[in-house]
Amino acid sequence: MTDRALEPFVWNAWHVAAWSHEIQDAPLARTILGEPVALFRDGEGRAAALEDRCCHRAAPLTQGQVTPEGLECGYHGMVFDGTGACVSNPGEEGGPTGYFVRSFPIVEKQHFVWIWMGDPALADESKIIDYPYHDDTQKWPFKYAVIPMPCNYMLLVDNLMDLSHLGFVHNRTVGAGGSTHTRAIQENVPTDTGTRFERWILDCPPPPTFTKAVGFKTNIDRWSDFEYVAPGTVLQWTGALEIGRGAQENRDQDGAFCVRLYHGATPETESTCHYFWSVANGYRQDDPQAGEGLFVDIAATFHEDKVFLETQQAMIMREPNRPLSTRSQDKAVVLARRALDRMIEEDGAVVASATE
Amino acid sequence: MTDRALEPFVWNAWHVAAWSHEIQDAPLARTILGEPVALFRDGEGRAAALEDRCCHRAAPLTQGQVTPEGLECGYHGMVFDGTGACVSNPGEEGGPTGYFVRSFPIVEKQHFVWIWMGDPALADESKIIDYPYHDDTQKWPFKYAVIPMPCNYMLLVDNLMDLSHLGFVHNRTVGAGGSTHTRAIQENVPTDTGTRFERWILDCPPPPTFTKAVGFKTNIDRWSDFEYVAPGTVLQWTGALEIGRGAQENRDQDGAFCVRLYHGATPETESTCHYFWSVANGYRQDDPQAGEGLFVDIAATFHEDKVFLETQQAMIMREPNRPLSTRSQDKAVVLARRALDRMIEEDGAVVASATE
Amino acid sequence: MTDRALEPFVWNAWHVAAWSHEIQDAPLARTILGEPVALFRDGEGRAAALEDRCCHRAAPLTQGQVTPEGLECGYHGMVFDGTGACVSNPGEEGGPTGYFVRSFPIVEKQHFVWIWMGDPALADESKIIDYPYHDDTQKWPFKYAVIPMPCNYMLLVDNLMDLSHLGFVHNRTVGAGGSTHTRAIQENVPTDTGTRFERWILDCPPPPTFTKAVGFKTNIDRWSDFEYVAPGTVLQWTGALEIGRGAQENRDQDGAFCVRLYHGATPETESTCHYFWSVANGYRQDDPQAGEGLFVDIAATFHEDKVFLETQQAMIMREPNRPLSTRSQDKAVVLARRALDRMIEEDGAVVASATE
Repeated sequence: MTDRALEPFVWNAWHVAAWSHEIQDAPLARTILGEPVALFRDGEGRAAALEDRCCHRAAPLTQGQVTPEGLECGYHGMVFDGTGACVSNPGEEGGPTGYFVRSFPIVEKQHFVWIWMGDPALADESKIIDYPYHDDTQKWPFKYAVIPMPCNYMLLVDNLMDLSHLGFVHNRTVGAGGSTHTRAIQENVPTDTGTRFERWILDCPPPPTFTKAVGFKTNIDRWSDFEYVAPGTVLQWTGALEIGRGAQENRDQDGAFCVRLYHGATPETESTCHYFWSVANGYRQDDPQAGEGLFVDIAATFHEDKVFLETQQAMIMREPNRPLSTRSQDKAVVLARRALDRMIEEDGAVVASATE
Repeated sequence: MTDRALEPFVWNAWHVAAWSHEIQDAPLARTILGEPVALFRDGEGRAAALEDRCCHRAAPLTQGQVTPEGLECGYHGMVFDGTGACVSNPGEEGGPTGYFVRSFPIVEKQHFVWIWMGDPALADESKIIDYPYHDDTQKWPFKYAVIPMPCNYMLLVDNLMDLSHLGFVHNRTVGAGGSTHTRAIQENVPTDTGTRFERWILDCPPPPTFTKAVGFKTNIDRWSDFEYVAPGTVLQWTGALEIGRGAQENRDQDGAFCVRLYHGATPETESTCHYFWSVANGYRQDDPQAGEGLFVDIAATFHEDKVFLETQQAMIMREPNRPLSTRSQDKAVVLARRALDRMIEEDGAVVASATE
Repeated sequence: MTDRALEPFVWNAWHVAAWSHEIQDAPLARTILGEPVALFRDGEGRAAALEDRCCHRAAPLTQGQVTPEGLECGYHGMVFDGTGACVSNPGEEGGPTGYFVRSFPIVEKQHFVWIWMGDPALADESKIIDYPYHDDTQKWPFKYAVIPMPCNYMLLVDNLMDLSHLGFVHNRTVGAGGSTHTRAIQENVPTDTGTRFERWILDCPPPPTFTKAVGFKTNIDRWSDFEYVAPGTVLQWTGALEIGRGAQENRDQDGAFCVRLYHGATPETESTCHYFWSVANGYRQDDPQAGEGLFVDIAATFHEDKVFLETQQAMIMREPNRPLSTRSQDKAVVLARRALDRMIEEDGAVVASATE
């Protein structure tokens, strides 16, 4: 594991810029990897991303309006299309030629708007994470949100990769007491792009959120499959069955508690990130209350995390180079950091060669 | 034009420190060119300016009170007269001798309190701008204010020197749509101390403020004479007449919309300034509602500018050395910056020789 | 006197960390000498102080809870005892061995919790100030508080060591007009650990607080004995008697106004401090209203000081190396600074040798 508590940005990678539904008629301002970005839809409804700074007087373009031709600066009326080219330049003798702002590659897929902040020539769509559950709302109805997290993106990932905190931080929702979670059996497997684990807690009390969802009356066997994909994604499949129903042999049974979560940490600054998350209930799919109740509980859970992530970040900022220590429970944390380190190293090389 | 988006202070120049009426019985604290200044009136009613820092324990003098002898520090009671000399030193064995604070040359004229922050030996009163309209309230009744602007003083000047923003930012007051303002004809003339222009828009719709003022029912010919005087002053004469009344031959006709504005941008810090402005209505001079309505509209206009100036400043601060670009509409902006650059260069030389 | 307006921390010294009663069942977070400290009581009720940063993931320990074994981190449940040793490490294969956080020597005495932030080997309990009045509540019933002061700790001490400010800042409570206080007679005596003075104002009007306390109807003779003990303590004995009762010969008479104040300035950061103070009324000891009224007045007094200390600090921060000047009234200030300078010099030597 690296000695870095706070990780630098990975430039040549896809990051979630927004949920599709966030970009409507008005431009959306969002800072990504420290850069001010203006998100909007062009006349054909295609999502586009420009640097949120007019090339004329540096006014944020998101203070203007979207026109059929593109994004109009609210200060002097210059209009830029989705490629960043100026297409209208009111009162300019030479017309719009020669004026442009920076644009960023954008791909919209499965309700995500992905952005590539690095070298556009390297933006390979095939590297975007596939999340088919967002396309299968019959089986996986989902709700989603984005919340500001006052920490480096990797502290958020670390938090997800060490689930031993559930019994201390989340006992009002998905936790069942410290000793329940620290006796879990977890198998960690490094992958090309990150790491994944399968985690089991057998014969344990059901936590409040599980019981509210499917009415458990006995102890349960619960599992969590997590996969970290560098730099900022964690894919989660969590579920549980009453003891004695053979969960370890067959997890796909009626009456199981069963959820899928998407966690996407997009750096805003070095010390803050955007937390894009969705949660899908794989039970009572026809009951809107099921999804709503789960969403409320998971949002509460993330608020519980936020309390620690914020102060952890502040404490680390006092002495950024002072290393953290690891415990046995951190095996997946270590593997995730290792995968990210490889990516950062590669990214540094790419950035260097791109600027040569 | 300089590549600097944010301009340094000009030390050896007169700046507006306050409106005369702002300095009454209590001391007034104001930061000017980054320096904390205490403004007050001495026993004879003369405005005076001291460094707002007691020489004893650095308490701000403006936390004290004005006495007939001078400004009394509220902490231990030392009193300083308008020259900065200590004239009372309670309990001091040696009396007040040898204690003093820095004072600044002050000239009060035409409702302005002008201050000289540079070398006092160079403070030449004849260089203070003459604004006779403040003395002629029969013809030019005026109202005035000072508002904090969250930007470098020169961004405020730039804003005034490129009026093509009126049709985008100010359509609720003095703007009449983008295409109206970008077809204006403007003649720019450099001057010894800055630059001035005469700007005409012929046969155009009257904007809301003009119509409220004089009840235009047809299209108008409108003009704007602006003069920038470095470092921070812009003098404005704006008016309009119905089409067909020969405005270009004779602007001084009954029923004309006709206003004079004084704009004074005094740097507070590198990234903020004090915006001293007055507006005089050259119509319906006997009707207090005329002046009041105009004042409210112009104040609203400046609030509309502020929204852009604040974010423009913030965006520039991210990368202070990244140049802005210019358009044909920026000819007066470029000339103004050029005049300021000459003044800054000269000021640097003066400061250097003064400190040798 | 040093040219430093703002003083550095003294590491190898006892500082007040808290009032005893502040540390109950929950951990108390307090920044001392720039370090985040977690204060709590162990299973036997002994006060303890740990660095407020878990050695695992840097979460503040004060976000956890106190258990019979020690302070439990709220994030992953590690427990640390008062020595900083990890005594419980949930889910860790190797158990708690080898995990620890920094602890600080603590001594609880006379309602104070004293902390030693420097080299623990040098923490000599005998150097803790003795304040027996807190043990004699029959004669000296007291009330106490801690208030945040937005200034370097030594500006607070300076304020106490130059009482000529009473007639300017505190006329609503303990002041009786500027000229009363600047004619005081004060004898200053350097001590090994600081300096002390005896100060008399004879035949002067009683200030509001004194009159409220004991109903003075004539002029008074008032005294103040102050002792500064480096780095941050000032011990005060103040009183008054009606003129003609021979106060200078015998201060211990019935009907005297007579108070003892403890002032403890513990640095929080370089520009803020914790002001621990207590006030004991040596009159009407059986009347709870006497103590309460005095407490309210003294709290108001310190709020009046705060207004100056905050802006004084801000003004000094603009130019930290610009020296302050002194007056005859500052003799005790100068002696106190001199004593502190000796201590800082010695402390620097100790820190240097401890880190060699």
